[in-house]
Amino acid sequence: MRRRGDHVKRALLIVIDGAADRALKTLNGKTPLEVAYKPNIDQLATNGVTGIMDPIAPGVSVGSDTAHLALLGYDPFKTYTGRGAFEALGAGIKLQPGEVAFRTNFATVDEEMRVIDRRAGRYIEEAKEFEKLINSISLKTSNVKVLFRHTVEHRGVLILRGEGLSRFVSDTDPHKIGMRVLESKPLIDSPEAKRTANIVNEFTREVYKLLKDHPLNKSRVKRGLPPANILLVRGAGVLPNVKPLSERFKVKCACIAGIALVKGVAKAVGMDIIDVPGATGGLDTDVLAKVKYAIKALEDYDFVFIHYKGTDAASHDGNVWAKVKIIEKIDSAIGYLIDRVNLDETYIIITADHATLTEETRNHSGDFVPILIHGPGVIPDDVRVFCERACLKGGLGRIRGLDLMNIIMNYLDKVEKFGE
Amino acid sequence: MRRRGDHVKRALLIVIDGAADRALKTLNGKTPLEVAYKPNIDQLATNGVTGIMDPIAPGVSVGSDTAHLALLGYDPFKTYTGRGAFEALGAGIKLQPGEVAFRTNFATVDEEMRVIDRRAGRYIEEAKEFEKLINSISLKTSNVKVLFRHTVEHRGVLILRGEGLSRFVSDTDPHKIGMRVLESKPLIDSPEAKRTANIVNEFTREVYKLLKDHPLNKSRVKRGLPPANILLVRGAGVLPNVKPLSERFKVKCACIAGIALVKGVAKAVGMDIIDVPGATGGLDTDVLAKVKYAIKALEDYDFVFIHYKGTDAASHDGNVWAKVKIIEKIDSAIGYLIDRVNLDETYIIITADHATLTEETRNHSGDFVPILIHGPGVIPDDVRVFCERACLKGGLGRIRGLDLMNIIMNYLDKVEKFGE
Repeated sequence: MRRRGDHVKRALLIVIDGAADRALKTLNGKTPLEVAYKPNIDQLATNGVTGIMDPIAPGVSVGSDTAHLALLGYDPFKTYTGRGAFEALGAGIKLQPGEVAFRTNFATVDEEMRVIDRRAGRYIEEAKEFEKLINSISLKTSNVKVLFRHTVEHRGVLILRGEGLSRFVSDTDPHKIGMRVLESKPLIDSPEAKRTANIVNEFTREVYKLLKDHPLNKSRVKRGLPPANILLVRGAGVLPNVKPLSERFKVKCACIAGIALVKGVAKAVGMDIIDVPGATGGLDTDVLAKVKYAIKALEDYDFVFIHYKGTDAASHDGNVWAKVKIIEKIDSAIGYLIDRVNLDETYIIITADHATLTEETRNHSGDFVPILIHGPGVIPDDVRVFCERACLKGGLGRIRGLDLMNIIMNYLDKVEKFGE
Repeated sequence: MRRRGDHVKRALLIVIDGAADRALKTLNGKTPLEVAYKPNIDQLATNGVTGIMDPIAPGVSVGSDTAHLALLGYDPFKTYTGRGAFEALGAGIKLQPGEVAFRTNFATVDEEMRVIDRRAGRYIEEAKEFEKLINSISLKTSNVKVLFRHTVEHRGVLILRGEGLSRFVSDTDPHKIGMRVLESKPLIDSPEAKRTANIVNEFTREVYKLLKDHPLNKSRVKRGLPPANILLVRGAGVLPNVKPLSERFKVKCACIAGIALVKGVAKAVGMDIIDVPGATGGLDTDVLAKVKYAIKALEDYDFVFIHYKGTDAASHDGNVWAKVKIIEKIDSAIGYLIDRVNLDETYIIITADHATLTEETRNHSGDFVPILIHGPGVIPDDVRVFCERACLKGGLGRIRGLDLMNIIMNYLDKVEKFGE
């Protein structure tokens, strides 16, 4: 049944990755969101309702994958099936049920398989040549096919395609310099997991054989670059079995993101991916371009999700002022946005997927994040600044990531009534 | 063990159905609860504690049945077994385990079984005659008995009594004018569901045979009224299997409500039903009469629950000012109440079962509702107005419907200690 308003209302969710933080010494006890000059976001906070949100639960530290699953309405405890799957989907690979996907790094090892550089210098112009070589590998111990795709810099995705595979195998990446490449091991006691670990190990040896004396690597060494002589794999994952958003809420959804992982999560839950030239996910990502594409997308889609990565990257680098500046840049883009969309028909939701502690751990944490919702019929609270401290007093109270999609879809009148 | 105060303290829960709303254009961005003049309720808010409540969870849209189950302390995801059962209980039928109950409408169909009027003109003075006829139906394909009870206007309840029945069958009511009466279908793959669907379809054909050329219907047509020549059934349900409130909390409970559905839910959880003459559940329901009966009931009962329906009805009609006026009327009745009960011994809890969006969808939504608790020992907050915006800052924070009964019973010292 078509209800009044169905055709006009839409929602834009803007996730600023790792934007939340703690009271920082560098900022005299304030947070980057508190210090940043962001008149546009604060205007939305003033006229909207705010609150705080635990991506999963208070104190539970999350990855970007599990956090985004929750924010998009999927309980990660029930639906998370490993990061590799999202990386593969985000890289544009049509992952099939039963296939196991891994994230990979080109890396440099010495003759005793000790890791010297986990990224083989990060920039590997020979990657496409190596990709071809690696894809020519034919396993001897099984008829499982390997499919390798290089993505950006040292990163890539490995897919194992065949029967009787399991995602419950350990990484070969030791995650530390000076340590030997690990043997992949089964994480559960099953023939499939044993078989998959063996395949990963055979694959790793074959890659090393192919690459260690390759002329392109010899040339790299001559030029003073670390050879890309191994592929480290980690994060085994399979396609999660979920009902897409479009079916759950009868909405058309699109995602605008720079990084493969987030695109992959969005794809896994059935969103269309809108690629934006210049949106790289790095500090230099084109902040305004994403907003421009979002404005266009809102003409066709009920729900659009923009992901900004720069804040998280700055936090991992421990760069407080870079984090502040990126927030300010995003604010300008949001200023451009609110001048151009019809705010009487469009909900704008701004939040973070998690806090990243720029001063302490330089890593994700289980702290809460602020959230704001602006749009037609929303009952505003008294909060005028979008930051951790002010939003503590917000009208939404303290919600969980998993509540967010229901709240947004409720504003769009897309939540089916439970009961009569 | 008898504890001090056990014999005196009691609680009165007042649920104003669908009272919560969004910021409405008609009210310059305010809600009906904000605009209504309600000095008595606001007095209770001032001296009590307030907050917001999600009937089930943030953004989850609820029916009146599931919402009341939650408010009365029963998780609807575990205990909801279809609306029909509550309608039957509310109509005074002693539903037994295994029996399947449906809500029914007298309706008008043409010769091709297309629905012309889903309510057969709403007022059917021949209903009692038709009831007798319908109860004479004896099914040919099974020994299941049919029991039909007319309630008010076009409404009624159908019970299937016998072995091997299932509630997992679809409605025959197409819910739309111009569409054919639907075949009931099994909703799960079970012999019981198939059998029940067949019985419903046979029953529907028999009713049509009995009524289509009935002299009373011919007389209706002559008088220009639509004939009541079919019964549409929907909302198959069975008795929920729950431990009654009286056992869970050792309290005597009573419900004062106008509509069958709410009475049915209350009965299902073991409350006594107090019938109030003049309490019809419509806009014209006698607001003061309910309060008078409640004052009396509080002499005998530990926990009394009053349900007001008018606000929801006004919202479904899209009538903002009617909603405001009903709130004001309820406020006067509450003024009468607080002059007459001992507020040192009586907790008064006021809330809504859900929001109903008077301007947008004219339907239930997943928005939060405000709540207030007034009574001995309650620590007041700073909120002085009972409305969505003010209660956002209330001392209760954001709670869930399922928390409410524990909170009330805790004030009555009726919650058993978990652990030692």
